[in-house]
Amino acid sequence: MFEHRHLLGIEALSPADIVAVLDRSERYAGAPDPDWRTRLSGRTQINMFFENSTRTQASFEIAGQRLGANVMNMAMQASSIKKGETLIDTALTLNAMHPDLLVVRHPNSGAVALLSQKVNCAVINAGDGRHEHPTQALLDALTIRRRKGRLQRLTVAICGDIAHSRVARSNIILLGKMENRVRLVGPKTLMPAGIERFGVEVVHDMAEGLRDADVVMMLRLQRERMDGGFIPSEREYFHRFGLDAARLANAKDDAIVMHPGPMNRGVEIDGELADDLTRSAIQEQVEMGVAVRMAVLELLSRRAA
Amino acid sequence: MFEHRHLLGIEALSPADIVAVLDRSERYAGAPDPDWRTRLSGRTQINMFFENSTRTQASFEIAGQRLGANVMNMAMQASSIKKGETLIDTALTLNAMHPDLLVVRHPNSGAVALLSQKVNCAVINAGDGRHEHPTQALLDALTIRRRKGRLQRLTVAICGDIAHSRVARSNIILLGKMENRVRLVGPKTLMPAGIERFGVEVVHDMAEGLRDADVVMMLRLQRERMDGGFIPSEREYFHRFGLDAARLANAKDDAIVMHPGPMNRGVEIDGELADDLTRSAIQEQVEMGVAVRMAVLELLSRRAA
Amino acid sequence: MFEHRHLLGIEALSPADIVAVLDRSERYAGAPDPDWRTRLSGRTQINMFFENSTRTQASFEIAGQRLGANVMNMAMQASSIKKGETLIDTALTLNAMHPDLLVVRHPNSGAVALLSQKVNCAVINAGDGRHEHPTQALLDALTIRRRKGRLQRLTVAICGDIAHSRVARSNIILLGKMENRVRLVGPKTLMPAGIERFGVEVVHDMAEGLRDADVVMMLRLQRERMDGGFIPSEREYFHRFGLDAARLANAKDDAIVMHPGPMNRGVEIDGELADDLTRSAIQEQVEMGVAVRMAVLELLSRRAA
Repeated sequence: MFEHRHLLGIEALSPADIVAVLDRSERYAGAPDPDWRTRLSGRTQINMFFENSTRTQASFEIAGQRLGANVMNMAMQASSIKKGETLIDTALTLNAMHPDLLVVRHPNSGAVALLSQKVNCAVINAGDGRHEHPTQALLDALTIRRRKGRLQRLTVAICGDIAHSRVARSNIILLGKMENRVRLVGPKTLMPAGIERFGVEVVHDMAEGLRDADVVMMLRLQRERMDGGFIPSEREYFHRFGLDAARLANAKDDAIVMHPGPMNRGVEIDGELADDLTRSAIQEQVEMGVAVRMAVLELLSRRAA
Repeated sequence: MFEHRHLLGIEALSPADIVAVLDRSERYAGAPDPDWRTRLSGRTQINMFFENSTRTQASFEIAGQRLGANVMNMAMQASSIKKGETLIDTALTLNAMHPDLLVVRHPNSGAVALLSQKVNCAVINAGDGRHEHPTQALLDALTIRRRKGRLQRLTVAICGDIAHSRVARSNIILLGKMENRVRLVGPKTLMPAGIERFGVEVVHDMAEGLRDADVVMMLRLQRERMDGGFIPSEREYFHRFGLDAARLANAKDDAIVMHPGPMNRGVEIDGELADDLTRSAIQEQVEMGVAVRMAVLELLSRRAA
Repeated sequence: MFEHRHLLGIEALSPADIVAVLDRSERYAGAPDPDWRTRLSGRTQINMFFENSTRTQASFEIAGQRLGANVMNMAMQASSIKKGETLIDTALTLNAMHPDLLVVRHPNSGAVALLSQKVNCAVINAGDGRHEHPTQALLDALTIRRRKGRLQRLTVAICGDIAHSRVARSNIILLGKMENRVRLVGPKTLMPAGIERFGVEVVHDMAEGLRDADVVMMLRLQRERMDGGFIPSEREYFHRFGLDAARLANAKDDAIVMHPGPMNRGVEIDGELADDLTRSAIQEQVEMGVAVRMAVLELLSRRAA
């Protein structure tokens, strides 16, 4: 069913691929099963993070460990990069140690795909620049499917800093492939040029953007990626584009709230709403993250065998 | 016997609890047994250290690995904290990944207890501010019990920088619960106000403080925690409050010497005395540290099961 | 056969020891075997790196994990060293936790040997100052033996920054013990005084140095270790001492090219030549690195048992 060698982005996946990953993830969504512990025994998974990320790296590490893989973390900034080694040489070196799975996060869009062409093992993109973050989109999809009972014909509002967000990009592609209606909501300055070609609506007002939404997906304000352009004040941003209970009332009564984390409470989202488990699916997103990564690691290492 | 969900401090433990932990630790004090290797199979232990600590983190990591747990280390300064995420959000995120055991060190007193209220898994305090460091007190107690044959009716002199020491605090509470006589020895400037309420004697002279002691417990001079107050010169400090063989002669002939490490040789303690294995129990403390942590991990994950 | 307690350098090994390590490494050179996974079960391996090294640490970590050891990494700069603890105290502390194997890299020549005298476990030198890097020399020897069919009577040109290189030193000793002809090629400023006592030829011209060589071993230009002395410009260096296809024509037709990595492409070696798998054995060196380290870990932990 899932015949890809790497997971570089949602772009390359068919709707059937997406369903295959989600179905397998469901098996890993419950309480740990002793059977899982040997599924990747003897396999080597290397996490190469060229950008810091507590949660994504932890999620991949726990996923691999639960399946019995040998997991090795490499914090890349501190080490050979300093010595002037190229990304490709680092990849070739690790490849020669015969890992089965390489999980890579890199600040440059396209770097992970480039790297995947040089190695024999399966490569998983854990976020590359502003390009893609496919496991995030898959875990969001799994969360939506579990909460809404389906992953089709939903109205999803993705709100906030679209321009700097690979999470938004991967979600837009995935939700589009699954035939949902995607509405992007945010200030013009944080909306990428030409985004309409992905078949999305673009709205600059929250009340209008949230109307009849089944899912409200908030994004993190990526101040660290804003180079030179307009940076809104946090108060002003929350006032115009933050989500609280009052604003959520524009969406459907049973709309769920999502956030990829880490949250800026009181900037993108009201803290109380984030903690309201009847509306917020934020904790479930994290939980499904481990399940989706276990499924992806398993599917790709099967191919590699 | 040991019915606690977390280990946040010695304060909450009964004498029977303390004996239960020490008795179980004895089983882990010898050569590794192949049986141990699967005792925590499939369990996930996360070490969240918001302060650096080679020895404590290593001790917990080895303890978990020897029991077959999946152990994940998170160096927290470098990662999400920078992105402005709160302690509680970090904890909620990790909690959603279903760890069984969370080992936490944090610079703020009370932070670990706060965190424990937000998560489903067992939380172990690996040191919080100036508050408690319960596994250190337990490993000290185990070392004393093995060297002295009992943990009651002993005279224990705790010497040095009491004010900045969570090690001292946890030891004072534990030794008091077990009906020992505790004498605090150190300069007035390094003695916390109102410490007498714990039923300890306070002495400002080493010769007097060490008189008839069964155990002499030296503390690390915590220069890094002295904010603004009086900081003694190292030479002056050693001259007045350091421990060497001559000064130790004031204690009982068979008195043992302890130090939680890392030692400042020539500041708190004479290097030769530290290395004299007939008097110094410092290496045994480290050894018992792994055994105690194995016992605590096992006892708490049993409850979590 | 291999009766050493530690692996501190090539100096202490007999030709029979070297052959024993290489023969055992051959068993680990192929595809992972399920039998390997429990060979070091229950053993604790600690990697103590006082200098950063992506590739060497990764190689040791993968080697230990593939054999089922519990592997713990300690980045030493960040932690207790800051608190003023001595190397020996750190070693004594870790030793008290009963590791079986201690893999140590340290910037000071002789530091690893000193440390080995203080602990009960097996110590492996992963590079100490300008002194030795024995597993590198062993993996180079294994690569040469596989490519050339023998490890005797070969002409080996070691080229570049000999003065700052522990890799060169360990290789010179090993290749000498195995009765090869070793020629050192490089500028006078990067040639250590008195090196001729090791029975090597010293040449300052690449064309002459490469003549009839079976193996051309390039070294990394260790700018980070050049304190005060002459530092050549990269262009000038490549022009006079870099290796490209034209220069390699001076060596035997079937001469192989080696580099311990990380490479400075266009400084020591032409990028295209480095990637030419008919001549370059650079990837195979990395691959053999894991095999050699598995063999060393196994041989030493056998003794420790």
